[in-house]
Amino acid sequence: MKTSIATVCLSGTLAEKLRASAAAGFDGVEIFEPDLVAAPESPQELRALAARLGLTIDLYQPMRDVEGVDEETFGEVLRRAEAKFVLMKTLGADLVLCCSNVATATIDDDEVSAAQLRRLGDIAARYGIRIAYEALAWGRYVDDYRRSWRIVELADHPAVGVCLDSFHILSRGHDPAGIERIPAEKIFFLQLADAPTLSMDVLSWSRHHRLFPGEGSFPLGDLVAHVVRTGYDGPWSLEVFNDTFRQTDPDRTAVHARRSLRHLEDAVARRLGAQAPASLTALTEAGQPRDIDFVEIKAEDTSQVEALLELAGFVPRGRHRTKPVTLWTCGRARVVLNEQHARGLASHLSAFGVAIDDPATLTARADELGTPRAYRRTYATEQSLDAALAPDGTELYWAADALDEPAWVREFEHGTTRVAGAVDRVDHISLTLPWQVIEESVLFYRSVLGLSVTGTTDVPGPQGLMRSRVMSSTDRSVRLPLNVAPPATVERGHAAGLAQHVAFACSGIEDLARAARVRGLDVLPMPDNYYDDLAARFPLPPERLALLRELDLAYDRDEAGEYLHFYTRTVGEVFFEFVERRGGYDGFGAGSAPVRLTAQGAGVRPGSVRS
Amino acid sequence: MKTSIATVCLSGTLAEKLRASAAAGFDGVEIFEPDLVAAPESPQELRALAARLGLTIDLYQPMRDVEGVDEETFGEVLRRAEAKFVLMKTLGADLVLCCSNVATATIDDDEVSAAQLRRLGDIAARYGIRIAYEALAWGRYVDDYRRSWRIVELADHPAVGVCLDSFHILSRGHDPAGIERIPAEKIFFLQLADAPTLSMDVLSWSRHHRLFPGEGSFPLGDLVAHVVRTGYDGPWSLEVFNDTFRQTDPDRTAVHARRSLRHLEDAVARRLGAQAPASLTALTEAGQPRDIDFVEIKAEDTSQVEALLELAGFVPRGRHRTKPVTLWTCGRARVVLNEQHARGLASHLSAFGVAIDDPATLTARADELGTPRAYRRTYATEQSLDAALAPDGTELYWAADALDEPAWVREFEHGTTRVAGAVDRVDHISLTLPWQVIEESVLFYRSVLGLSVTGTTDVPGPQGLMRSRVMSSTDRSVRLPLNVAPPATVERGHAAGLAQHVAFACSGIEDLARAARVRGLDVLPMPDNYYDDLAARFPLPPERLALLRELDLAYDRDEAGEYLHFYTRTVGEVFFEFVERRGGYDGFGAGSAPVRLTAQGAGVRPGSVRS
Repeated sequence: MKTSIATVCLSGTLAEKLRASAAAGFDGVEIFEPDLVAAPESPQELRALAARLGLTIDLYQPMRDVEGVDEETFGEVLRRAEAKFVLMKTLGADLVLCCSNVATATIDDDEVSAAQLRRLGDIAARYGIRIAYEALAWGRYVDDYRRSWRIVELADHPAVGVCLDSFHILSRGHDPAGIERIPAEKIFFLQLADAPTLSMDVLSWSRHHRLFPGEGSFPLGDLVAHVVRTGYDGPWSLEVFNDTFRQTDPDRTAVHARRSLRHLEDAVARRLGAQAPASLTALTEAGQPRDIDFVEIKAEDTSQVEALLELAGFVPRGRHRTKPVTLWTCGRARVVLNEQHARGLASHLSAFGVAIDDPATLTARADELGTPRAYRRTYATEQSLDAALAPDGTELYWAADALDEPAWVREFEHGTTRVAGAVDRVDHISLTLPWQVIEESVLFYRSVLGLSVTGTTDVPGPQGLMRSRVMSSTDRSVRLPLNVAPPATVERGHAAGLAQHVAFACSGIEDLARAARVRGLDVLPMPDNYYDDLAARFPLPPERLALLRELDLAYDRDEAGEYLHFYTRTVGEVFFEFVERRGGYDGFGAGSAPVRLTAQGAGVRPGSVRS
Repeated sequence: MKTSIATVCLSGTLAEKLRASAAAGFDGVEIFEPDLVAAPESPQELRALAARLGLTIDLYQPMRDVEGVDEETFGEVLRRAEAKFVLMKTLGADLVLCCSNVATATIDDDEVSAAQLRRLGDIAARYGIRIAYEALAWGRYVDDYRRSWRIVELADHPAVGVCLDSFHILSRGHDPAGIERIPAEKIFFLQLADAPTLSMDVLSWSRHHRLFPGEGSFPLGDLVAHVVRTGYDGPWSLEVFNDTFRQTDPDRTAVHARRSLRHLEDAVARRLGAQAPASLTALTEAGQPRDIDFVEIKAEDTSQVEALLELAGFVPRGRHRTKPVTLWTCGRARVVLNEQHARGLASHLSAFGVAIDDPATLTARADELGTPRAYRRTYATEQSLDAALAPDGTELYWAADALDEPAWVREFEHGTTRVAGAVDRVDHISLTLPWQVIEESVLFYRSVLGLSVTGTTDVPGPQGLMRSRVMSSTDRSVRLPLNVAPPATVERGHAAGLAQHVAFACSGIEDLARAARVRGLDVLPMPDNYYDDLAARFPLPPERLALLRELDLAYDRDEAGEYLHFYTRTVGEVFFEFVERRGGYDGFGAGSAPVRLTAQGAGVRPGSVRS
């Protein structure tokens, strides 16, 4: 399987884009014309640079508005095209993308378009160049790949074939099964992009909101399987116009892009099964995580976090044999407090671990996906856990699922024997991310851990809208709400709204709330107005409402059950939530999140930015 | 005219929103229910706070899904509603917004909806509360204000009227003329929002992209004139859901919001002419600016800018009598170099002046619009120019249009007599703004200077997409392209992409380019690839192309004419462009902007952000 990426996916200059693509392991690139036009390097230099980097130039793109035009206009098309063919020869590119006509088409006739593509093909062939004709979703007359293929079939020219682009096919809801009717040798190129389901004009959707495969909702595995079944063995090429990737580090985006193709290759290989060509390899199957194994809070001084845990019924399980690290547990919930190399750091969620059937398989899978490794020093008598670095810098560890306790717990000494408390396990870990890394994070948790997006919501807070995507394992044993903080919050820095939180699942939450309060736990107060509103929303018995109010318990319900929860105050950049799900309630109390954000933000004012 | 603002327009806690609204001069507020639910203050406290601040609580909102439902569901509606009526009594609010049913309606029958509103009205009346029924653009059955009015007419209850919302009416393209058929006493409330023309689902458009009046493309003056003609004299209330305003300084947003209503009042007063009620006042007419009078560059050391100007044919017109400020001129182009109180500052565009028929009228108008004044010390023998502070911090001055030279020029002494050069005047000033202030800036230049948005474009650069809106005077003597830098650029700080530039209009640009080059002007080099592409795009004679290439001249054309231009290197945060418009060319060479951004960014790499 040959991989390629369009330079428009990346930020920077063309030379930077080429270097980033090569470093990420792509085999080739599509050169986006405006990138070349702006480049200070000559086509000869760029050709040499690509060659030195080991990149083929798979496509030059785009050539617009070439067919369906009157003769005079077509003369101008040929003049333009020939100038570009000369350039392509110098650049060493032998395939050009021609988009279906958007602006200048006046003739809605397949025969005319075919005849014009044939004449263009004649000239291209003189330069050893081939033409990949693509139906744009917003083409004036040709906006369906089945029609672009009909025109190419009519043109019947060896230098004229089709380019298939997943966005243009799937955004229009066209059935990709028809791809199998196109002979492989007439599929000159395959461009891939995912996208979120959006209801907006398809041009804006395409130009600003495309995503790398696995980040949106397009069935790309299905589409590519159809393409592979034709016998197509050309590049799988990413063409992702996205406002975020256009402005973030190209090296990082390229690695992320390459990972998306590796993950797609896996999906296609699995779908094709025995039919899959040898060039396609499935990823090592690691299964989904069974549970959250631990969470780690890091700070120069973790004593405030210790106090919160102790008041909530956790016990110190011990101090690590060789590191300034302690472990607190309650039931199967384990919190590691890490003071190593933490000078000046406020409390923050630095890592979490998942329990998995066979850790070695996940290690192999993460490596196959090119995931950066996280590393910690371990001594001979200690267990070495494998770990990856998530896009936001959080470390993700994995260890074997254990009936009783994972083996690594035995490295902690001098602690209290386990006692049972109200807290049983980690219900969810809520990660608030800068807007730059949300897509990459979705792909990371989807491809590495096999989680899927099980819900999206916008939470209005006093500092702006928090956009939330929930990633979960199928049995919900691992739930990770990923939140995108308002950009202005990020510009003002962490403290104003980038707090992470860990939610512990409990039983008997009222008793826990009462006991913790008696012991002096600093619970986030919920306003009276919230309870008056609850009374209007739900027909709760007055004594039940009074209890919720007394204990600062938030409440929600859906068709399946109820959700009761309360929050601690924030320490540094982290806080805890205690939750009890009753019945099959599957949400996160979205109704109370704006109230919580307001209570947490008391005293924090939205700032102003002047240039 | 009574003004009001929905608390959802502003960021912060409810108390902060109330303070910001009062400080900006609003008469009242709409309380958005989630703001109240999250507030730690009791309804009694909020009522007292509003009273102390001099704010009336004009509306409580929203109550959803109240009509078109089966009897069982309606029983639940009444229970919910009564709880809210109790709250409203305590809060001191006597009007509630009821939106047309989106979620629970099962009965598409005006009689049923009317009967249910009537029963709701009966209960409301017992609390002294009235109901304003509004057709949401995405209401399940009721999505047109004409239908909501028909239902209210059928309900025929003194406590039941309509709420008109400009977004819901104009987003659907409904003719607002029908408003005049509604009796004033049945229009219980008027909500106003502008919006850009977008093709997306109306719910997302409404929830994220509303704007304050004057910032989008809705004909609000027309709509409100229809409302005023009915005799409606209730509040003009802003309800603007906008992702940006939700996260930026509420004090500033409130002032900006209030200005938008003052500007709308002017539009309505003018439209109604003699029909306008006495409560509506037009703004002082100041006319449009005649020209750019000067631009000012400020820095601790402006000598590098002096060098650029000198090499481009400008002459030093003199040094200011009392300040460390010099004036450079060429033709009618005047550049003030200001070293006063500039320690540590790099060269940046700090101010510009416009020439206007009668400066006193613009001063009055700016004051009426609540524009912040810019201030500078002047001495007895000097002319004091009035000035306003634009949203991005640039100072805007105005002076009387003068046939020869404005009077303030005489304060500069010991300079060279004017000589003619290729440069004649300022063609345009291109301002790059952080994303937070673009809407406010559009309203500022539209309301204060009477400019309008004459074009929008997205410019792809190596650091991201630059979104550009051009504001111009009708005769194009003043042109201000306003660009929104990619947010990641802003996060990395000014130098990486927030440069401003001043474009000087010239005649004989080839001669200027050659002469400046001979003198050693540091011209921004354009890549060869750009000229090869020009050759493919336009059938230019080879010798003409060779000349463009030799002189690093960029080229564009449209139906009306041609545009030739070149750039200097950036000094600090500012650079210059020299342009020649031939024929009626009305653009800014958008085709060359990505090339220019790439050339300028050479060496600047897009950065990465990790939380």
